[in-house]
Formats: sequence, C-alpha cells, structure tokens
Amino acid sequence: MDLCKISQPLFIVDKARAIRNIQLMADKAARSGVILRPHVKTHQSANIASWMNQGDASKITVSSVAMAEYFISHGFKNITIAVPINIHQLSTVNILAQKAKLGVLVDSHESGMVLCEKIEYPVDIWIEIDIGYHRSGIPFDSREELVKLASIISKSPMLNLIGLLTHAGQSYHAKTPQEIINIYYLSRDNIIKAKTLLSSAGFSTDLQVSIGDTPSCSIMEQFDNTIDEIRPGNYVFYDLTQEQLGTCSYDEIACVVACSIISKRPERNEVVIYGGGIHLSKEFILDEQGNAIYGRVALLNEDLTGRTDVLPDIYVKSLSQEHGVISTPSKFVQNCQIGDTLLILPVHSCMTANLFSKYYTFDGEELDSFRL
Amino acid sequence: MDLCKISQPLFIVDKARAIRNIQLMADKAARSGVILRPHVKTHQSANIASWMNQGDASKITVSSVAMAEYFISHGFKNITIAVPINIHQLSTVNILAQKAKLGVLVDSHESGMVLCEKIEYPVDIWIEIDIGYHRSGIPFDSREELVKLASIISKSPMLNLIGLLTHAGQSYHAKTPQEIINIYYLSRDNIIKAKTLLSSAGFSTDLQVSIGDTPSCSIMEQFDNTIDEIRPGNYVFYDLTQEQLGTCSYDEIACVVACSIISKRPERNEVVIYGGGIHLSKEFILDEQGNAIYGRVALLNEDLTGRTDVLPDIYVKSLSQEHGVISTPSKFVQNCQIGDTLLILPVHSCMTANLFSKYYTFDGEELDSFRL
Repeated sequence: MDLCKISQPLFIVDKARAIRNIQLMADKAARSGVILRPHVKTHQSANIASWMNQGDASKITVSSVAMAEYFISHGFKNITIAVPINIHQLSTVNILAQKAKLGVLVDSHESGMVLCEKIEYPVDIWIEIDIGYHRSGIPFDSREELVKLASIISKSPMLNLIGLLTHAGQSYHAKTPQEIINIYYLSRDNIIKAKTLLSSAGFSTDLQVSIGDTPSCSIMEQFDNTIDEIRPGNYVFYDLTQEQLGTCSYDEIACVVACSIISKRPERNEVVIYGGGIHLSKEFILDEQGNAIYGRVALLNEDLTGRTDVLPDIYVKSLSQEHGVISTPSKFVQNCQIGDTLLILPVHSCMTANLFSKYYTFDGEELDSFRL
Repeated sequence: MDLCKISQPLFIVDKARAIRNIQLMADKAARSGVILRPHVKTHQSANIASWMNQGDASKITVSSVAMAEYFISHGFKNITIAVPINIHQLSTVNILAQKAKLGVLVDSHESGMVLCEKIEYPVDIWIEIDIGYHRSGIPFDSREELVKLASIISKSPMLNLIGLLTHAGQSYHAKTPQEIINIYYLSRDNIIKAKTLLSSAGFSTDLQVSIGDTPSCSIMEQFDNTIDEIRPGNYVFYDLTQEQLGTCSYDEIACVVACSIISKRPERNEVVIYGGGIHLSKEFILDEQGNAIYGRVALLNEDLTGRTDVLPDIYVKSLSQEHGVISTPSKFVQNCQIGDTLLILPVHSCMTANLFSKYYTFDGEELDSFRL
C-alpha cells in the first residue's frame, strides 16, 4: 500500500491516536470504578475492539443484532444490543443467546410480552429509559409504564431484568462543555429516579444503571457511584463534530479518509478529490462563518507514518457521490499536484467508517470491519 | 420474504414504477434522436441496468473504475467513467480497456500527459467541460486549456478524443422548473462554445456532446440536435429531492426502505423505526415550515404487491445510526403496532441505495448490487 498513490479512497485508522483514546477512557472508568462497555458501532471492527481489551472490552455494546452476530463470530461473549429490540428478530436472538451473554433493550410492554413468549434461552433485559433525549425509552417518571414492563419481564424464566439504560443523545446538541456536564447530571438524576420508582414498587434495588454518550463521557472526569456502567463509542476515533462540541481536540481525531487529487482549479482556489458522499457521508458542520464543512484536511507526514496537524483554511466544501470539492488557500492549490494524497478528517466518524468494508493503519495493517 | 415482518431494513425497488420511469426517458431520448447513456451510479445494479435495455442500455455511465469493473463482469461492454480519472488507477483501466469500450474523463493537461504515457489499449477520451457548475471540468471558454489538453490527447495512438462532456449539477439547486430549463440551455450553449473553440483550433467538428443531469432531462421534453448524448441516472428511482425540485411526483418515486416499528410514543405523536443513517443516509430536505425531512412514509398496500400513496403529515424527523424517529398524526400512532412495517421514501435515492448490498422487489425478486 503506497499512501502517496491512492487508487481509491481508503479509511485509515490512526492506531497510535486510537489506542491513546482507548487508554484514556479505560483509565477514567477504572478510576471511577464503573464498568466500561464500549459501543463498538463507531468502528464495527473486531480488530479494533480487541485493542480495547485493557478497558475490559470483553464487554461491548452494539447497535444491531447483525452486529452482535459479527462480534460473536469473532469471539466476543458479552454483548448488549443497545437499540429497542425488533420483535421480528427474536429467532436470531435465540440463536445468539446460546453463544454469548446477550443484553437486549426493551421500552414497551408490547415488546416485553413478545419477548416473554418467544425467547427460549437466558437473556439479560435492559429497560431503556428516556431521560429527556426523546428518541426511544420509557419516560423516567412514567411509573405505570415502568412497573408494567418490569412486571412482564419478571414473569419469564428466560428474561433476567438486569437494569436500566439510557442514552443522553441531546449532548450532541450542546453549545458549551458546561451544558454537556449538565446533561450528564440530568441523565444520572433521572435514571436514578426511574430506579427508585421501580424499587419502591418492589423490584430489586440491585438493578444496574448504564449511561453513556461520548460527549459526556469525554467531558466528565469522574462518574458517580450510582452509575454502574458507561457505554461511549465515538471516542475511539472522535471527529469534527466532537471537536466542535469541545469534547476532543483535532489532535485526538484518530481516523482519516485518504483521497487522491483528481482536478484542480487555481482560479477558484479549489481542488477536487476522488472521495465523495459514498466515502465520507454527507454530514456536515457549520463553521463560525456559516460555511458547511464536510471534512478538514491533513497531509501525510514526511516519513509516511502518520498525518500532519489539520491544515488551516482548507476544508471540504461540498460532496457529490464520488467527488469532494476542497476550498484551499491560493498557495496550496498552486503547489499541489494532480495525484497528491489528502487526508480527510471526517465530520462524523461512525457514518464514515460504516461506508468501508475494511480499514488500514498507516503502516499497512488491514483491519476487518462489519458492514450490512 | 414477509414484508409485514421485517427483521432488518430492506431496500425495495418498486419495479413497475422503475420500469415506467425507464421507459419514459428512453422514449424521450428516442424522440429527440439522442443517445441515452444512463448513469447507473444511482442503483449500481446489473439487474436494473438490464431493465434499461430498451433504452439502449448497452451504453452506460458509471462513477468509478471499480463500478466499471463490476458492470463489465456482468457483461456490459460500453462504459463511460464520468469522474475525472484518478491517475493512480490506470493499471486497472488498462485491464478493463481490453474487455470493453471504455470512455474516460479528463480535465487537465497533467492527467492527459499521464494518460498518454500509461494507457496501453484504446480508450475513448471525454474532455470534461465546466459550463458553470464549478465542480470539475475545464471552463467552457478557456481556449488555452482546452487546446492544450486536446493537443496532448491527440498525440497518443491509444487515446481517441471522442467528445466533450458536462454535468450541470447546479440544476439540483434550482428553485423553479423554469430555472432548470434555463440551466439546460446554458449547458447546451456553453458546451457548444467549447466545441467551437476546439474546431476553430483545428480539432474535429465531429466531437460528440454529452450532457445530462436528471432534473434537466426530466423537465425537458425535447433535446436539441446539437446534443449527441444524455446521461441522467437518478430518474430510475427519483426521490424526495427530485419531488421538491418539481422533476417528479411522489407517484414516480420507485424505491423505499422497508422498516419495522420498534418503539412508539403516543404522548409525542412519534414512532421509532429500526432504520437509521446507515440505511437511509443522513441527507435531508427542508419543508415549507423549515422542518428537516429525512424521509416520507407510505404503507404496504392491502395485497402486499406495492405501496400506498405517500401518507400526509408523517415524516422522518431525525436519524441516529440505526434509529429513525417519525413524526405522525395522533391517530396514526394510536393505531399502529410495534412490529408494523413502514415504507420510507428516501431523500436521495443514490445515497440510500449505496448503503445496501442487495435489493428486493415487492414480489421478492432479489437484485444484485455493487458496493465498494
């Protein structure tokens, strides 16, 4: 693999940076005495999940039954599927539950009843709690719904009500780090309220509490002892969205898409790369001037072992299916050559990584990746 | 395949609608006497390209060398790769040029010189012209650049300068159908100006002219006899972006993503589907009220052979990686059940189709699809 001569866009994992990110989160979890059950949906890679071993990565979180299947086939044995279970996938859940300790998410008595009827092997059940994000989950203060679902689950010998789980996704819309901290505390307080409602209704006081989104897990230095488990995922790679949120620096972003320059227009201070929406995804952030930014740019360092810092004043300004248009300073476009490699830092690494069926490290190691 | 019990999101091709769309464009091209070289990047499917046979689909357009390779492996023999060629892919181009009549796009003398040096088998060369879209291409009035590149190409016995090609992608930003018509005429006039510049410099007057984006090819009823070839692609499926542009109706949208309801929140008039950004892509349109719309919704018709009309007042309001949140009227959320199937009409069918490695028709026919 010659990174100076890219034939088609390559997803490059910056292994040293990724391992540093993994280690920092693992240390933080260990200091607080919480279980780190990393969400592997960001990379969907058994190789990268194995780098997380120091962080007790034998416990992982996935976002689909198919992804659980992939990780089980790669030897992972303790997996939470953190999306409300689709009742039409229970035959596969029954197969997987014989191979691994499986955690399944439920947020309705309707699904709970189907699980009772159809699950034939022991499965851990997490009740998803809505602490204010308003995606899925039972509202934290909805005693009636909580008790109804917990009662249904408790009736099945195959369903083990293990705890309450939430995702405070509103942290991605925070304007300041302080707002993220506030969301963490709200999350914690509200999920504990739900736990208290259940214990006051006679359910176990030992129900576990699982929280975790990358913004709050990155910003918080310490987790309360009311929290049993955190499930951040994006922190392995981070991305421009996290940088804008203030939860990482450019230096911590641990993946790039390597692309070739295929066209240059000095009169517009633009170059075009072979690399478009099907490689980078079409998510964007807005910069302070209101420009849509679809990626930022770095170069290979001199010895080709990694990347430079993010270049100032150069960004991906638009994406077609396979073209990316890059706005550059005039000096840059005058000096670059057709065929040169640019390294694009993605806006949302989960979406970008999902578009590749394998990844590479800068030193050419090939990394396996799940894709639907 | 039971479409009432979807285990994971499925990309469904509405075959009757797709064939109707294909036929209409083929008839229109035939009436004007232009070659239809459909862009197959929208579906990337050899099966669907074969439905286009009536429209002379033995000639196709693709957006990457890898996609050309896929279609050649499925028997296609006349392919234009409509992205400026990446000079680091020429060894593959040399292999493919022995198997099919290959058209390659160039927009710089730098790339032209590399092609001269490295191409070992006959290849058609299209000079890409920028008629005002400002992505790639030589500006239509840049005589010096045009002549320089055409001269370089003409020196190689392997490079056959076949014509000029443009993509008026700015039609996707038009506010009215009239604006799209104006863009078509601008496109035609400007590419003809480039052709005239070259013929006045002594190059053949027989250079072909290839244009074509789905908005202008859908809106125009007739193409001028100065145009040799059109290359629309998206019209096979269309999507919500095209509907908003006024280039198709909802009734013409010929693909959906079938998803299961996994959560419902009557108090917010919302349901959640298993189907997120990795299934639908995160492109959105804004409706008249400024709401971001990530998809519109239809249902299976009663005999399960197709879909209903688009339902009013219901749309995908946000997407996570695997969740889609749907805003619904209160009556809808009260009547629907966990596990019900919703059919999501995509915002941008090219990006959505790219996320699936195979498709199905409503009657269960499986369609092959290329994916990187």
